[in-house]
Amino acid sequence: MASYGKNFKISVFGQSHGETIGAVAENFPIGFCPDLDELKRFMERRASRSSLTTPRREGDKVEIVSGLNADGKTCGAPICAIIKNENTRSSDYGEKLDVPRPSHADLSAFLKYGEYYDHRGGGQFSGRLTAPICAIGGLCIQYLRSIGIEIRAHISSIGPVRDLTYEAIREYPNVTGKELPVIGDYLIELYKDMISSAKENSDSLGGTVECAILGFPAGYGGELFDGLEGRIASAIFGIPAVKGVEFGSGFSGSESYGSENNDEIEFSEDGRLITKTNRHGGILGGISSGMPIVFKAAFKPTPTISQDQRSVSFSKGESVTLASKGRHDPCIVLRAVPCVEAVAAITALDILMEKNIVIS
Amino acid sequence: MASYGKNFKISVFGQSHGETIGAVAENFPIGFCPDLDELKRFMERRASRSSLTTPRREGDKVEIVSGLNADGKTCGAPICAIIKNENTRSSDYGEKLDVPRPSHADLSAFLKYGEYYDHRGGGQFSGRLTAPICAIGGLCIQYLRSIGIEIRAHISSIGPVRDLTYEAIREYPNVTGKELPVIGDYLIELYKDMISSAKENSDSLGGTVECAILGFPAGYGGELFDGLEGRIASAIFGIPAVKGVEFGSGFSGSESYGSENNDEIEFSEDGRLITKTNRHGGILGGISSGMPIVFKAAFKPTPTISQDQRSVSFSKGESVTLASKGRHDPCIVLRAVPCVEAVAAITALDILMEKNIVIS
Amino acid sequence: MASYGKNFKISVFGQSHGETIGAVAENFPIGFCPDLDELKRFMERRASRSSLTTPRREGDKVEIVSGLNADGKTCGAPICAIIKNENTRSSDYGEKLDVPRPSHADLSAFLKYGEYYDHRGGGQFSGRLTAPICAIGGLCIQYLRSIGIEIRAHISSIGPVRDLTYEAIREYPNVTGKELPVIGDYLIELYKDMISSAKENSDSLGGTVECAILGFPAGYGGELFDGLEGRIASAIFGIPAVKGVEFGSGFSGSESYGSENNDEIEFSEDGRLITKTNRHGGILGGISSGMPIVFKAAFKPTPTISQDQRSVSFSKGESVTLASKGRHDPCIVLRAVPCVEAVAAITALDILMEKNIVIS
Amino acid sequence: MASYGKNFKISVFGQSHGETIGAVAENFPIGFCPDLDELKRFMERRASRSSLTTPRREGDKVEIVSGLNADGKTCGAPICAIIKNENTRSSDYGEKLDVPRPSHADLSAFLKYGEYYDHRGGGQFSGRLTAPICAIGGLCIQYLRSIGIEIRAHISSIGPVRDLTYEAIREYPNVTGKELPVIGDYLIELYKDMISSAKENSDSLGGTVECAILGFPAGYGGELFDGLEGRIASAIFGIPAVKGVEFGSGFSGSESYGSENNDEIEFSEDGRLITKTNRHGGILGGISSGMPIVFKAAFKPTPTISQDQRSVSFSKGESVTLASKGRHDPCIVLRAVPCVEAVAAITALDILMEKNIVIS
Repeated sequence: MASYGKNFKISVFGQSHGETIGAVAENFPIGFCPDLDELKRFMERRASRSSLTTPRREGDKVEIVSGLNADGKTCGAPICAIIKNENTRSSDYGEKLDVPRPSHADLSAFLKYGEYYDHRGGGQFSGRLTAPICAIGGLCIQYLRSIGIEIRAHISSIGPVRDLTYEAIREYPNVTGKELPVIGDYLIELYKDMISSAKENSDSLGGTVECAILGFPAGYGGELFDGLEGRIASAIFGIPAVKGVEFGSGFSGSESYGSENNDEIEFSEDGRLITKTNRHGGILGGISSGMPIVFKAAFKPTPTISQDQRSVSFSKGESVTLASKGRHDPCIVLRAVPCVEAVAAITALDILMEKNIVIS
Repeated sequence: MASYGKNFKISVFGQSHGETIGAVAENFPIGFCPDLDELKRFMERRASRSSLTTPRREGDKVEIVSGLNADGKTCGAPICAIIKNENTRSSDYGEKLDVPRPSHADLSAFLKYGEYYDHRGGGQFSGRLTAPICAIGGLCIQYLRSIGIEIRAHISSIGPVRDLTYEAIREYPNVTGKELPVIGDYLIELYKDMISSAKENSDSLGGTVECAILGFPAGYGGELFDGLEGRIASAIFGIPAVKGVEFGSGFSGSESYGSENNDEIEFSEDGRLITKTNRHGGILGGISSGMPIVFKAAFKPTPTISQDQRSVSFSKGESVTLASKGRHDPCIVLRAVPCVEAVAAITALDILMEKNIVIS
Repeated sequence: MASYGKNFKISVFGQSHGETIGAVAENFPIGFCPDLDELKRFMERRASRSSLTTPRREGDKVEIVSGLNADGKTCGAPICAIIKNENTRSSDYGEKLDVPRPSHADLSAFLKYGEYYDHRGGGQFSGRLTAPICAIGGLCIQYLRSIGIEIRAHISSIGPVRDLTYEAIREYPNVTGKELPVIGDYLIELYKDMISSAKENSDSLGGTVECAILGFPAGYGGELFDGLEGRIASAIFGIPAVKGVEFGSGFSGSESYGSENNDEIEFSEDGRLITKTNRHGGILGGISSGMPIVFKAAFKPTPTISQDQRSVSFSKGESVTLASKGRHDPCIVLRAVPCVEAVAAITALDILMEKNIVIS
Repeated sequence: MASYGKNFKISVFGQSHGETIGAVAENFPIGFCPDLDELKRFMERRASRSSLTTPRREGDKVEIVSGLNADGKTCGAPICAIIKNENTRSSDYGEKLDVPRPSHADLSAFLKYGEYYDHRGGGQFSGRLTAPICAIGGLCIQYLRSIGIEIRAHISSIGPVRDLTYEAIREYPNVTGKELPVIGDYLIELYKDMISSAKENSDSLGGTVECAILGFPAGYGGELFDGLEGRIASAIFGIPAVKGVEFGSGFSGSESYGSENNDEIEFSEDGRLITKTNRHGGILGGISSGMPIVFKAAFKPTPTISQDQRSVSFSKGESVTLASKGRHDPCIVLRAVPCVEAVAAITALDILMEKNIVIS
């Protein structure tokens, strides 16, 4: 299954090389008029035609085939966004899955689905499926902005080289317009060199994305298994290649003393309860504190590389050497930034749709 | 809400200083005869009476008040495990919440629940609520062992000092019987000194716990939002103080090249598909690969420390200095190990209860 | 599993002859001070000590062991209500289930749970489990009344003899105080005679309960599978012995013409949109219309009767004659009225906790 | 929202006059090769071009755009079935919803969605949306048959005239091939006359559909809120116009004595536990007994009739007389039979995907 959400819900469908991929979203706010040009620009950020990534042109033309009324406003019916696949060259991928690619879904998908697994292009496990997620997430971003909630994200590391963090600079700059979405401009050329170099070496690079949800109101979420960290993380781990999620100071906070990691409380100039620092990443006891919700997602290096790797042949029942030839991104973190924003927006909307009655 | 699970479900109830805390579990395997002595020993690991932690004796006597038949076997009715609170000295905690403790749920709980928040002892946000989770998780551990699935966990770091990892030693030793549950024995005295020192300084220390689910079968889970990482992480983040979760090589894997992070595939001696290394932490494409499922959880330092901290007084509407006097653990990671095991077992059982039909 | 609810959730636990039965409710409105005396009176209606039913005295003393703060107000933590079983005379029920009672859960429970089924008193299938449901439902009734929503129910038939309906009299009288909760007083003696007669004949009688939710606001629910009929019915069918649920004119409406069954629309004196009649039972297109939500539940006759019936012996593997001797109600419809009210209140609160954003 | 299912899940999208309607299904059995010709014939039963219903030709060409692999077999990815709307003559329906049709979703949809409601053709409330439900349900029917589970349904009444019941004849005949799907052939001309007459009178007729799930295995379901009656009913009420659901003897059973309504237990010739009669409709204690699951659904008369009816004008704020002119079915029960079969199959598959571990 490929669904997320309790109140605002999204179900994703499609396979990488299928005819159509898409997503259905239920319980989106009613009466909202999406800006389809803006959505198109958002989709382009994901498709990322820069020479740094794979040369594939995906088009990613989103059609919203249900959920809008004659005025183009959301009408309360579920929203279905579809993307037709064009030019899928399935010939790149051979006929039957015989040699699973190391650290790719091939192995586990075969173990679950057997011969029925549609491995062409990675089937339902392909990063391609983040396109419909971005389509729905892009609508969520637009709605959230209309009520004062902004989603920001940046590349926080590529390989071992880290960007500045939001907490370090105590700001949440919008870096979308830069050639690479980083805070420290000095990293742009370095990151480009690192990626080019990985590509030349037929290798790939991992990285992290830091994301902030600004303006998220206090008092949402709950204790234990209803905590916001778990609800957000479960969605972020839904993005292919994510292997770690941390909130606020996260893993580095676990290396520190309480006296270093605690966030003292004060009143803001306009009388709101705030914290001086935001090592808690906007969530305390599983509940939003009113500070920006901040988290990082760790992306593993693209498993598909063009180097020789040892694997097995199902048909021969023996070890073989695989020389992968499929197109691949040397560093998916470039494309991942809008995906993280999209999923963050989906989780934020789902959480906001939660109702809590306090008797006054 | 404080529930987890899709097939096997757990709902936790109670407040730190309430009369009774407990949990209800639905869809536990039927006909299982729990070993209540073993459960008692498991609960004692959490209560952790060692001098290293808070001197509180919690008793934690678990009563299973429903779900067993006259023979003491699970009968298909929901299991309810309760723990009666004894000696709750609520006088420690004052009458009304006036000054929220930095980085504690006090702030956000007040913002959600207002004056109704039962802050005594941390209310429903207290680490105390991990006791009923351990009661149910302890039953899950017993059942899983009966079908060949073992849960292991160890302290993988305290402050900045790291233990060995399972991947580093390519083994998953059972360290439960040690004075501190670590792989590297040389760390025991060091960790004890660090914790004692933090306590003397009225401070606290964070840390991480690494956990492995051994023997978990391949082929469970699914793509995108149904991936096992998200399902497991959402539960692990339900343990109070967890701020980060990573699978396999996780964040450090994101610093590496694909050629370094990929796990080559081979046949085991008995003909199973395995990987030479386990940097993927037993999950590929959201689906179990048959390798051990391995993850780490980052615990922030206990926020309750006995140092002066700046906070605000709700009644006075101004900044004040808080000198917290409540009892607290200098390092909750000691108690966290069985909690992580318990929650891992709960997620493993929930995942195993998922049904997948493949036509043969 | 024995849970209900999407936003407001209830999980019921316990077996008829277990030590403790109870229920956990999550997401109840916060800051509500339950009237425990009123709850006690509500529980007494279910326990129904009248000579018309089984002579059993159940006590049904409800303890709320979590979810209240020091002021006795709901604090946001899950509410756990427990009832300790007293004087369970399990000796009435023999040692092992050998001869399943016709039309009782015995047969299907054995087929699901095998020998592990705790059949004493009907295990988790017993009408006894409606006690914790009534405890939580009773709290919901109190809260709903505080916001202007009233739940009413009456016996609408016993055997083939029908009471008046709400639609027939265009009123929703409160009949709780009557000796039997019926609209037509002339039925009281007749129903009593019918039940006494059934009891003398070692037989039992079925019946129906009609229920109205007054003051429920318009605009809740949704199309298709999110319709309120389905959400309410799925809970009502959770009451043991319910075999049919209909809304508004229901089955009899299906026998009529559109011109007879349609409800014309008009403005009320205070300008609200209402319908002249309420054959639609307050729900159109799955969404509340603002008219009272009205439904009927059909209860089968108590299957446990003291007449000879043919069944089988599991141990002998052959047909036998069963002469049931357990205590039983000759007509559970008497006790069913508060149960239906309780479940209606639980569904109403769950539906009200749904959030729907319409941009203005 | 318009989703159903816990394990096998369906989400429906689209509006009556939108470009595309469809449904996404998750967790369908893997490796199944659907017979698309059979599916087409099943869809034709719903489209029901007989002169008895509205003359509209809907085409209903189903495209399965995801979930199949290159061999046309289900591959584990969600199945998305879409139907493109052709020739939607929205001019039939005026520009803005001004006068809500009595007993139609217009009123409640307006109260929920306000001006944003896409009322053209009934929006998301239209019976048109049963087409994608039938597409997915048709696949479920095919799969279930492959494992020995057959779904049967027939018109059990039109207006006050009832067909024979399965229980009455102790058989479950397949009546799909008849001109009208009834058990008693003598009803065909009578029903046709009744419907023609209603049509001539600009009126409509309600009715009921009885459905049986044959071969459903014993031991699925659970107590209280997990009972099969509630799970099946919640889906059946999702079919537009259903206002009542009963299992087995249902409402008429509630009029009887226990001695009349109980089903005695015996061994079948091949040694299975069966009941002599099936007044319990295959479900006892919420759990399948192994007997056919039998239920009836009550459909209200089509609310859209061509007679003058009183309603209100939103724009004028006053009462008006509405003379509806939209095309409509004089008796939707004709089309409802395959819809009930489809939804029964969806629920049966969802229930079968539930996993229950009993230790042996």
